[in-house]
Amino acid sequence: MRNIALNIAYDGSAYHGWQVQKNNVTVAETLEKALSEICKHPVKLCGCGRTDARVHALSYCANFKTGCRIPTERFPFAANTHLPPDITVADAVEAEEDFNAISSCQKKEYVYKLLCSRIANPFLHNRVCFFPSQLNFEKMRAAAAGFVGTHDFKAMRSVGSETKTTVRTIYHCELKKEGELITMAVCADGFLYNMVRTIMGTIVYAGLGKLNPGDIPALLRSGDRRLAGPTMPAHGLYLSRLWYKGGVGEMMKINSAKFDFPFD
Amino acid sequence: MRNIALNIAYDGSAYHGWQVQKNNVTVAETLEKALSEICKHPVKLCGCGRTDARVHALSYCANFKTGCRIPTERFPFAANTHLPPDITVADAVEAEEDFNAISSCQKKEYVYKLLCSRIANPFLHNRVCFFPSQLNFEKMRAAAAGFVGTHDFKAMRSVGSETKTTVRTIYHCELKKEGELITMAVCADGFLYNMVRTIMGTIVYAGLGKLNPGDIPALLRSGDRRLAGPTMPAHGLYLSRLWYKGGVGEMMKINSAKFDFPFD
Repeated sequence: MRNIALNIAYDGSAYHGWQVQKNNVTVAETLEKALSEICKHPVKLCGCGRTDARVHALSYCANFKTGCRIPTERFPFAANTHLPPDITVADAVEAEEDFNAISSCQKKEYVYKLLCSRIANPFLHNRVCFFPSQLNFEKMRAAAAGFVGTHDFKAMRSVGSETKTTVRTIYHCELKKEGELITMAVCADGFLYNMVRTIMGTIVYAGLGKLNPGDIPALLRSGDRRLAGPTMPAHGLYLSRLWYKGGVGEMMKINSAKFDFPFD
Repeated sequence: MRNIALNIAYDGSAYHGWQVQKNNVTVAETLEKALSEICKHPVKLCGCGRTDARVHALSYCANFKTGCRIPTERFPFAANTHLPPDITVADAVEAEEDFNAISSCQKKEYVYKLLCSRIANPFLHNRVCFFPSQLNFEKMRAAAAGFVGTHDFKAMRSVGSETKTTVRTIYHCELKKEGELITMAVCADGFLYNMVRTIMGTIVYAGLGKLNPGDIPALLRSGDRRLAGPTMPAHGLYLSRLWYKGGVGEMMKINSAKFDFPFD
């Protein structure tokens, strides 16, 4: 059996997240149907993680086993002819037998896009979070820096998640501003449920002056979710980059910025 | 009666163009409903021109007469609370009594966006025309230059349009390339039916080597639509800028690039 790893991008607006559910349309289900048609056998995907309803992916990795003879480089084109326009298979490689998109993943990056404008942009509906209030960008940047490092992120998750430990390592958490668009990029060895959206809500609170950037370490130490900012809306969130060893890592590196905006 | 001029942006994907129709949802109809609710009387809009089904506007101008007492600067916010997210009123000014969005317009600019990629971008579905074939950009640029000036554009329109004359003046017709995205901007004193989409199709033909850039003058002189390139799809087309005298002109100038991508 071959083990095929795919690099996928999707606009999550119309989907109830990645993971297959009984009564809702999900990205995994839509992809499995397309791949099953191509491979002529039922395909079961292993995804790099769950994304929530309406969250997007600029770069998502999933793998599946197949005995079919389709050349690996043909998978993107073949899959895309069977997929709706909001899901794209950007690339494919044949991975090692024991490769697994979730357990082989070394680190992940998410971005959150906030458009600070009095007037909403009709072309960015469901692609960014509109935020009509004034924000202090330097305070937001200082708050973001407070999350970097190895910490217990219990204060930054929503209940309903089961994990052995709430300790994670954030490698970078950076903000950039391009016109009215603020983009936060956060990279970690793993994320708790709603962690990125809560971090962004806390950064926004710092920008509004509701919280001091210097208070982030104490907030993390408290472990108290109620002291953090709000969970920001899903539609501003994008899974943006994944790190793996070997050929899959090369594939994910090459394509990580392809679908992002602003374009370069 | 006050004469209010609005600067509007819309994602045309869900609409059968600007102009009110009997059995289809249009941008004008949607805006008139929202404005009628605000003004508490039926509002009739005069738009700067018809845009076809699925064509977008980064900057569209429409005016209407009202006796209501709402301050002019409140119209954008008030209208946007009554509008779907794919239509935005960006700005409003009180115009001279005889201002008319169509007859007062001095010139117009359209842009056409082409994404030259083997792989479609799920975030740009309905926002650009995907074009997976190789194109010679320099030949496209040379072809575009051939349209500049005062010419009879009979060869560049679709039948079904009634106009006294098919002579128009193109002030600029330029191409730029940002990564895989090619954007054509064309500015004229007026456009014939499907003229921009036919010009773009002819430029694409030059890029494919199906036509010589040097043949454009002869093609225009022939007046023969069959010698031009195809009419490109509507969803890559945006009305991008309008020129007027006075306060309306200032408003349209300030907001012309606000909703465009790539952002600066």
